[in-house]
Amino acid sequence: MTLHVIAVTVWMTHQRTIVKNCIMGKQKALMDKLARTFQVRHMLLRQALAECLGTLILVMFGCGAVAQLVLSGGSHGMFLTVNFAFGFAATLGILVSGQISGGHLNPTVTFALCLLGREPWRKFPVFFLFQTIGAFLGAGIIFGMYFDALWDYGQGTLIVVGENATAGIFATYPSKHLTLVNGFFDQIIGTAALIVCILAIVDPYNNPIPRGLEAFTVGFVVLVIGLSMGFNSGYAVNPARDLGPRIFTALAGWGGEVFTASAYWFFVPIFAPFIGAVLGVMVYQLMVGYHVEGEAREKKEEEEKEEQDERLKLSSLTTKDSA
Amino acid sequence: MTLHVIAVTVWMTHQRTIVKNCIMGKQKALMDKLARTFQVRHMLLRQALAECLGTLILVMFGCGAVAQLVLSGGSHGMFLTVNFAFGFAATLGILVSGQISGGHLNPTVTFALCLLGREPWRKFPVFFLFQTIGAFLGAGIIFGMYFDALWDYGQGTLIVVGENATAGIFATYPSKHLTLVNGFFDQIIGTAALIVCILAIVDPYNNPIPRGLEAFTVGFVVLVIGLSMGFNSGYAVNPARDLGPRIFTALAGWGGEVFTASAYWFFVPIFAPFIGAVLGVMVYQLMVGYHVEGEAREKKEEEEKEEQDERLKLSSLTTKDSA
Amino acid sequence: MTLHVIAVTVWMTHQRTIVKNCIMGKQKALMDKLARTFQVRHMLLRQALAECLGTLILVMFGCGAVAQLVLSGGSHGMFLTVNFAFGFAATLGILVSGQISGGHLNPTVTFALCLLGREPWRKFPVFFLFQTIGAFLGAGIIFGMYFDALWDYGQGTLIVVGENATAGIFATYPSKHLTLVNGFFDQIIGTAALIVCILAIVDPYNNPIPRGLEAFTVGFVVLVIGLSMGFNSGYAVNPARDLGPRIFTALAGWGGEVFTASAYWFFVPIFAPFIGAVLGVMVYQLMVGYHVEGEAREKKEEEEKEEQDERLKLSSLTTKDSA
Amino acid sequence: MTLHVIAVTVWMTHQRTIVKNCIMGKQKALMDKLARTFQVRHMLLRQALAECLGTLILVMFGCGAVAQLVLSGGSHGMFLTVNFAFGFAATLGILVSGQISGGHLNPTVTFALCLLGREPWRKFPVFFLFQTIGAFLGAGIIFGMYFDALWDYGQGTLIVVGENATAGIFATYPSKHLTLVNGFFDQIIGTAALIVCILAIVDPYNNPIPRGLEAFTVGFVVLVIGLSMGFNSGYAVNPARDLGPRIFTALAGWGGEVFTASAYWFFVPIFAPFIGAVLGVMVYQLMVGYHVEGEAREKKEEEEKEEQDERLKLSSLTTKDSA
Repeated sequence: MTLHVIAVTVWMTHQRTIVKNCIMGKQKALMDKLARTFQVRHMLLRQALAECLGTLILVMFGCGAVAQLVLSGGSHGMFLTVNFAFGFAATLGILVSGQISGGHLNPTVTFALCLLGREPWRKFPVFFLFQTIGAFLGAGIIFGMYFDALWDYGQGTLIVVGENATAGIFATYPSKHLTLVNGFFDQIIGTAALIVCILAIVDPYNNPIPRGLEAFTVGFVVLVIGLSMGFNSGYAVNPARDLGPRIFTALAGWGGEVFTASAYWFFVPIFAPFIGAVLGVMVYQLMVGYHVEGEAREKKEEEEKEEQDERLKLSSLTTKDSA
Repeated sequence: MTLHVIAVTVWMTHQRTIVKNCIMGKQKALMDKLARTFQVRHMLLRQALAECLGTLILVMFGCGAVAQLVLSGGSHGMFLTVNFAFGFAATLGILVSGQISGGHLNPTVTFALCLLGREPWRKFPVFFLFQTIGAFLGAGIIFGMYFDALWDYGQGTLIVVGENATAGIFATYPSKHLTLVNGFFDQIIGTAALIVCILAIVDPYNNPIPRGLEAFTVGFVVLVIGLSMGFNSGYAVNPARDLGPRIFTALAGWGGEVFTASAYWFFVPIFAPFIGAVLGVMVYQLMVGYHVEGEAREKKEEEEKEEQDERLKLSSLTTKDSA
Repeated sequence: MTLHVIAVTVWMTHQRTIVKNCIMGKQKALMDKLARTFQVRHMLLRQALAECLGTLILVMFGCGAVAQLVLSGGSHGMFLTVNFAFGFAATLGILVSGQISGGHLNPTVTFALCLLGREPWRKFPVFFLFQTIGAFLGAGIIFGMYFDALWDYGQGTLIVVGENATAGIFATYPSKHLTLVNGFFDQIIGTAALIVCILAIVDPYNNPIPRGLEAFTVGFVVLVIGLSMGFNSGYAVNPARDLGPRIFTALAGWGGEVFTASAYWFFVPIFAPFIGAVLGVMVYQLMVGYHVEGEAREKKEEEEKEEQDERLKLSSLTTKDSA
Repeated sequence: MTLHVIAVTVWMTHQRTIVKNCIMGKQKALMDKLARTFQVRHMLLRQALAECLGTLILVMFGCGAVAQLVLSGGSHGMFLTVNFAFGFAATLGILVSGQISGGHLNPTVTFALCLLGREPWRKFPVFFLFQTIGAFLGAGIIFGMYFDALWDYGQGTLIVVGENATAGIFATYPSKHLTLVNGFFDQIIGTAALIVCILAIVDPYNNPIPRGLEAFTVGFVVLVIGLSMGFNSGYAVNPARDLGPRIFTALAGWGGEVFTASAYWFFVPIFAPFIGAVLGVMVYQLMVGYHVEGEAREKKEEEEKEEQDERLKLSSLTTKDSA
């Protein structure tokens, strides 16, 4: 009888293994098929999708933190938590998208790299578009997540400016003390600071940090900008991060006032950052970039010259030998 | 006489060395014996124990921070400290258990990896069980640690919901403004965000961070989720982290109300996260995963083809030669 | 005339170079002489000095943050800043002393490593003594630094317990709600948590983090313990960090009350942490340590066996050959 | 007709490629020309420029955070955010300038390295000057950025000391409780702590951290000093960081009172830090530095001796052989 039991057990184990292998095999086959079906082969589209997801993550976590601060009335957040969230959200967005698209998440970064000839100009409009779409979607997710809280806080209305205003969760609006001119300057300086630091981090001739820590360092840059340049108008320093959520709020119920509020403020975080990017590129290149690049170039030229000299000597020797 | 002293000193030093070696030897032998006695040889049990300890650490530090915030009335904590604690507790839990079990600490992470075929399905129920046990034990440690403070704060009672409620230290309960539907969506989105970021961090075809920093990066993910998605219901995004402590509170004196409170809320942080995990896997794979995987596969196939071509050429050459 | 000028210039440059070289040479010689004079050649003394400096840094920054919080009345700090300060101070203390002494900065860490046979027992009393001296000195520096503020805050008196008390800046005192038994348990759990995490970080068979990041990770451990276990009695979890500053306050003007206050509380942070260390060693070894160690040992034994088998085969072959 | 269309399309694509290449080529040529034109070839000037930009970044972000805290009345900052900003600003300043100049950003750091003979003394005045200029410019940028907010906060005036004072945004002023003597001691201790930690981080004989993380670790040092030593007078611990912005405020409208306020306080953060640097160098060298250096030297000498012995043996052997 025991023999019988053993035989049955063995048989059952065998069957189980077959079933398991069958399931595992089927799962694997399905996974492979899915992978082949959904793989996007067009490089630029792939990069654009990555930028879209990265910016979605940036805005979802960043604006989520603003929502948490505003809607909780300060019990579940403060300005520092918003700064942390935007900083580390930038890090995570770059980590997710970096290997595919470089993880710009910001049209001014793409713009600066195009200016320096490190990215082709045709990427700029595509990235700008998909970054804005990603920001739009990120705002939508936060809208859904805090849907009850938004209506509860606004007591049934969605207000752009004033008491119980909630539009500031998604896009930036200036403080009362700020004039348009100072606001423009604010966005130029903020973006220039961002670009100077990012250029130092990704400069191929300047290697300040271990490979793989770029995303974390950019996160610290965004954090520091928020800690020191966030009081005037909430440090957008990113046209996509501001425009995408603003369009979302216009469609989701806040209405056209999101564009007309504060003397058409929405123009500022779209255009000023690009001027800031040009300024940042100039400052970094003049103060640091050209010199490290030049040093590298001179070193290379010297080596090449030495090599040539050697070859000349060698050939003359050979000539003599053969003579 | 001095000679005598020297001799004695030498002898004493000698004796001391012998005694010391003896002690050291005995200690070493004891250590070795203990190691051999208590070594668990069953791989899955070993991994389950590691998951148990890791989740214990996560819940002990995380819920400890909530306890510190609530029981001190805000003098020794704020929502940010809870976010930091859960984030870095996740990091430490992963560091402690990672080499043995992978450091999931969360059934939805195990679930997502099973879905992708990277972990066998039989691990899922075992890990879920031990993660829940770990969370239960972690809650128990915090209960013991803040025993006096709990009774002091509750003035002799353990209350689930309302003023001086302390059940929220261990398991999550929804804010007043939250409906069940929004709560479900909240947990789905939170878990999906977690899974997207974790998949990017551990994707074998996407290498965004240096080896060994995965635990720190996951900690940042948990931190950011807390900074931006914690207002609705306290970002459980982890069935084990919520269920284990809830069972503990039910047994420790808060009673069955911990399950019935807020229209059986306890179902939400158990089921919604798994839906979030499916969503997170889909989003990551469609937007990033399939493309990096495909690229790697194509590269490999190309190389294999080239190799084959070469071999073919070689064999034809050989044939010619031998001809 | 121009020639004359050139000659003078050349001569002056020459002189300057000589003078410079002379100065540089003298400085170098002086440096070398100083280095040789003050070099401590006794290994254990050198390690003890490093532990002393490391613990000084830990206590100087940590207690400095408490002083800043208390004396500023909350305007220049909060409990979170104290947690950050103790965490990163531990990191810095370990960085400064780590290469020489291992950077324990805490007698319970030395104790745990002795228990596991990784450090010889004779180090324990020496390290304990110098760690306590370092903590004493660190407290002294903070006393000097905030001398004016201390007298200003205490309105001319140094008070141990009660309103305007300042003794809590240096050593720990229990909260009102805490009984001695719970306080003992609090210190045991806190230290056990510390030791479990530190053992995971430094376990030679478990390599969770890149080499060189140990100090930062230990800093995070101390930070997290402060975030979640600091409300009862200020998370000393370190006999030297508590005893050294307590002795300093007794001598500096607070008097013997620092020992008698709260029913001789000072015993708790001296003795409970060692029990916690034993508990921590047991938990880590039983749940993780023995298994990774065993795996490594088995792997090694297998390799050795294979090698032996090969050698046997080889020798038998040789025998056959020679036969 | 379709053929015609294809031909045209091909021709257009061709033209586009030509135009694109032309643009890309022109951009590249322009970039190269700019690089060659603006490259500074004088090494010390290049280093001085890098120090200038690095200190500019330090002061811009650091003082920006103070401005945000003061001008927002605490709604957009707290003392902790200032500490984070100065810490991470130091990190970013070092990252930007480190490869070129070492990233001192602080005359006392240059001074300490000169004292130890690791930098030539002639760098000291040049670096001091350019660091001060950088700090001056950084203060100017923040003045421009928060121009509206400054006038709004001061209600039309720029006040040095008292209510609504804004000079403290840029340079440091002592708290009311602080005497000059204690202030001097405060700056000495703060700078000594900074120098001890920095020396440990950059000591060539002591390798506590992975290469490339120095900047981050120095940032943590600055953060911790702010957390624990900032209450007395705002932890300048850097003559350039204090003097540059103070001169700026004197010129920008606050007037000469910035120098005469608090009994000519401005002397303290200029002179005390250098004494602190000497103290820091002494403490580090006596407690740690000389011993690790000595160990390295002895190891080297031993190796050299062994080599020599071997050579001697070898030569004697050769002699014998030839004999």
